[in-house]
Order: sequence, then structure tokens, then C-alpha cells
Amino acid sequence: MRLRNKPWAEDYLNEHPDLVVSNPEDYKGRWNELFGNDNPLHIEVGTGKGQFITGMAKANPNINYIGIELFDSVIVIAAKKAVEAGQPENLRLLNVNGSKLEEYFAKGDVSQVYLNFSDPWPKTRHAKRRLTHANFLSLYEKVLIDNGEIHFKTDNRGLFEFSLMSLTDYGMKLKLVSLDLHNDDVEDNIMTEYEEKFSSKGQPIYRLEAQFMTEK
Amino acid sequence: MRLRNKPWAEDYLNEHPDLVVSNPEDYKGRWNELFGNDNPLHIEVGTGKGQFITGMAKANPNINYIGIELFDSVIVIAAKKAVEAGQPENLRLLNVNGSKLEEYFAKGDVSQVYLNFSDPWPKTRHAKRRLTHANFLSLYEKVLIDNGEIHFKTDNRGLFEFSLMSLTDYGMKLKLVSLDLHNDDVEDNIMTEYEEKFSSKGQPIYRLEAQFMTEK
Repeated sequence: MRLRNKPWAEDYLNEHPDLVVSNPEDYKGRWNELFGNDNPLHIEVGTGKGQFITGMAKANPNINYIGIELFDSVIVIAAKKAVEAGQPENLRLLNVNGSKLEEYFAKGDVSQVYLNFSDPWPKTRHAKRRLTHANFLSLYEKVLIDNGEIHFKTDNRGLFEFSLMSLTDYGMKLKLVSLDLHNDDVEDNIMTEYEEKFSSKGQPIYRLEAQFMTEK
Repeated sequence: MRLRNKPWAEDYLNEHPDLVVSNPEDYKGRWNELFGNDNPLHIEVGTGKGQFITGMAKANPNINYIGIELFDSVIVIAAKKAVEAGQPENLRLLNVNGSKLEEYFAKGDVSQVYLNFSDPWPKTRHAKRRLTHANFLSLYEKVLIDNGEIHFKTDNRGLFEFSLMSLTDYGMKLKLVSLDLHNDDVEDNIMTEYEEKFSSKGQPIYRLEAQFMTEK
């Protein structure tokens, strides 16, 4: 999701330090101090335009949320969306690279990882870039609590097939699988921008919840 | 798949003892003697009308196949189909209950188990009857070679979702997953009667290959 460079993006992000954390490495191991409570922390890796993470933050005030997005031209849209939504106190955004999670989170800082409509990287030679590749799973495990979970949804069949194999190969337990989310009775599904677009075309949305097993 | 009782079914089955094995318990641990070779043995549990197993036997003469079907009014159709197809030497049928596999096969007799369009038993209280329930997996493991495989396809979303969770919970490794088999480049897919019917309606066919892991 590369958008045109927005010269005003950096300015906007800098003007909202209470939403877009400019020094996340300083909170490693003590995000509870920033949020001012000990509520569980859920992060979304690749938060895009932010509709999901903002919706989740508003719907679940007793959970803290951090949306992580590399591209400043994209995260600025998420930031604006959060401000327009009243800037929930339990939401922060990080304009950093998801592959560097360990620099910002200590083991146990994170209770749950969300991956939504991640880039499928369909070419085999790019498999390591998929956010459900073993290398990324290892990274999530290093910042999650014991038995922490990944909640993943996508419209991309190839990525979902790969992910089922990758997660279970890694030793994760599948707690829930839906091969057509929008035809299930699901409470409280908060849609991403992509999800609204693809689902309205009648394409199935795939979803899973998987758990790291402490004793593998 | 209950069909009307066919009085001629039992007669037909009895008239083809070289195809429909009437004393399978006698071959436990020595099916190679019946087939006259040491080729690997693949079995299909719930073989229905037999299009799949007959097609596989014809396509793969170096593999032995056994189709297992409880209902005599159904297996008789499979038997007729096999006879019409020239009765491949590497094919046998068993008119027995799949839940009694251990009575007919010793550990290591079977190299691969096929499950095709098994009854979904959608009600939660019937979960134990699903052929991918842990109780059945344990049974398959008892007759399979080490690291033996299950190859499973179905059009039933709920059953496939359940199966992904059940197999991986059991410690099996997913070697292959397809969420839309007929839109993949698959060589040599032999269709069942159900598969032809459902696929022609545009419904996705789900398929997986899973392997028992000797060291769990």
C-alpha cells in the first residue's frame, strides 16, 4: 500500500506526539506507564489506514492498542482517523518497521498480535516477507506473553493457505478457523478498509486465531 | 448416503469375492500376500460409490487400494463400477465399519488414508462421528506406517474448519492446504461423484494433506 509521498505527513505526525509515539524504544518493558494502567496490550502489525485499530480501541476501552505501520504516508491517514474518532486514550500508533518489534517491546509486553490483510507476497522467493513466515512468528513470540495469540484475517487464499501451514509447523495451536467469516455468526467483527471493499464483492474473508504453546 | 435397501446387493457382493474381500480379518498384517506384491497400500474410509478409488487404482498400478464402505447398498455400486472398469488387480473393497480398522489392519499395513466428502455431522454433539475427530485419527495412526499421511477433501466448510483444528491439535503436520482445489493447478485430481456435482455449482472444494509426526 504505497501512496504518493505526502509532504505534510511528517509534520502531522510530529504534531500529535500523544498519539504517534516518537520514542517507542523508551517504553520497552513499561508500556503500562505510558497508558497509565496495567490493561493487556494488543498490537496490529501493518495497521494501514487504521480503521480496525481505532474501531477496536473504541469498542474495548479496557484493552490498550498499538498500531504499527512503516509508511508515514499511510499512518498519517490512520492518525487522522483516530483524531476524528476522538483519539481514544487506549490507542497509540508507531511509525516503525514491524520487523524491529524487539526494539520496542520486551517479552510479555504484548498479549495479542493482529495481522489484517497483510501483503501476500505471492512469489515464493518473497515468502520470508510474509508476516506469518516463521521468522516473524519467532519475533512475535519474543514480545508476547506465554501462550499469546495471533489473530489473522485476509481475503488472500494463497496467504491463508501458507499461514495455516506456517503457524502449525511452528507448533502453534489453531484455536479458531473461519473460511468465510462474513457468513458466520460473528459478534463484534471490526472491518478494515480492505475488508469492506473485498467482502462487498462476495469474496470470502478467511480468519484464524492461533496460540503459541509454551511447551512445544 | 443411505440408499433404499437393495435385496440383490448382498448376492452381488458374494458373487465377487476376488473384489469384495469377505474375510478381511484374515489378511491383517499380510495384505501383501493377497495383492501378491509389496506395493504400498492406500485405503479410503467411506468409499461411497467408488469412482475415486477405482480411478486411483487405474491411474496408479504400483499402489494397492482398498475402499471401505459400511453400507452394502452403496458399496455394491462401487463394486459394479470396479467391474465395469475392468476390475483393477490392485483394488479391493471391504464392506465393513471404518471404526473397526484395527480388526483388519496391523500397524504399518497402510501407507496412506483417503477421506473424501465424509459426512460432516454438523451438530456439535455428533463431533465424535466425524472421520477427522481425534478418536479416528488415533485409529488411523494405529494402522499407518510411521509418518503416514491423511489426504482429505470436502466441500463442507464446517467440516474442513473442524478438521484443520483437529488434525493440528493432534500434532499432525499440514503438508498441503488448498481452499479452492479446482482453481489450483493440480495434476491428477480424481474426482468423486459428489465432487463433480458440487464443483459444477461453483462451490469451492477444500483439500489437505497431513502427516503423523512420529516424535510428537
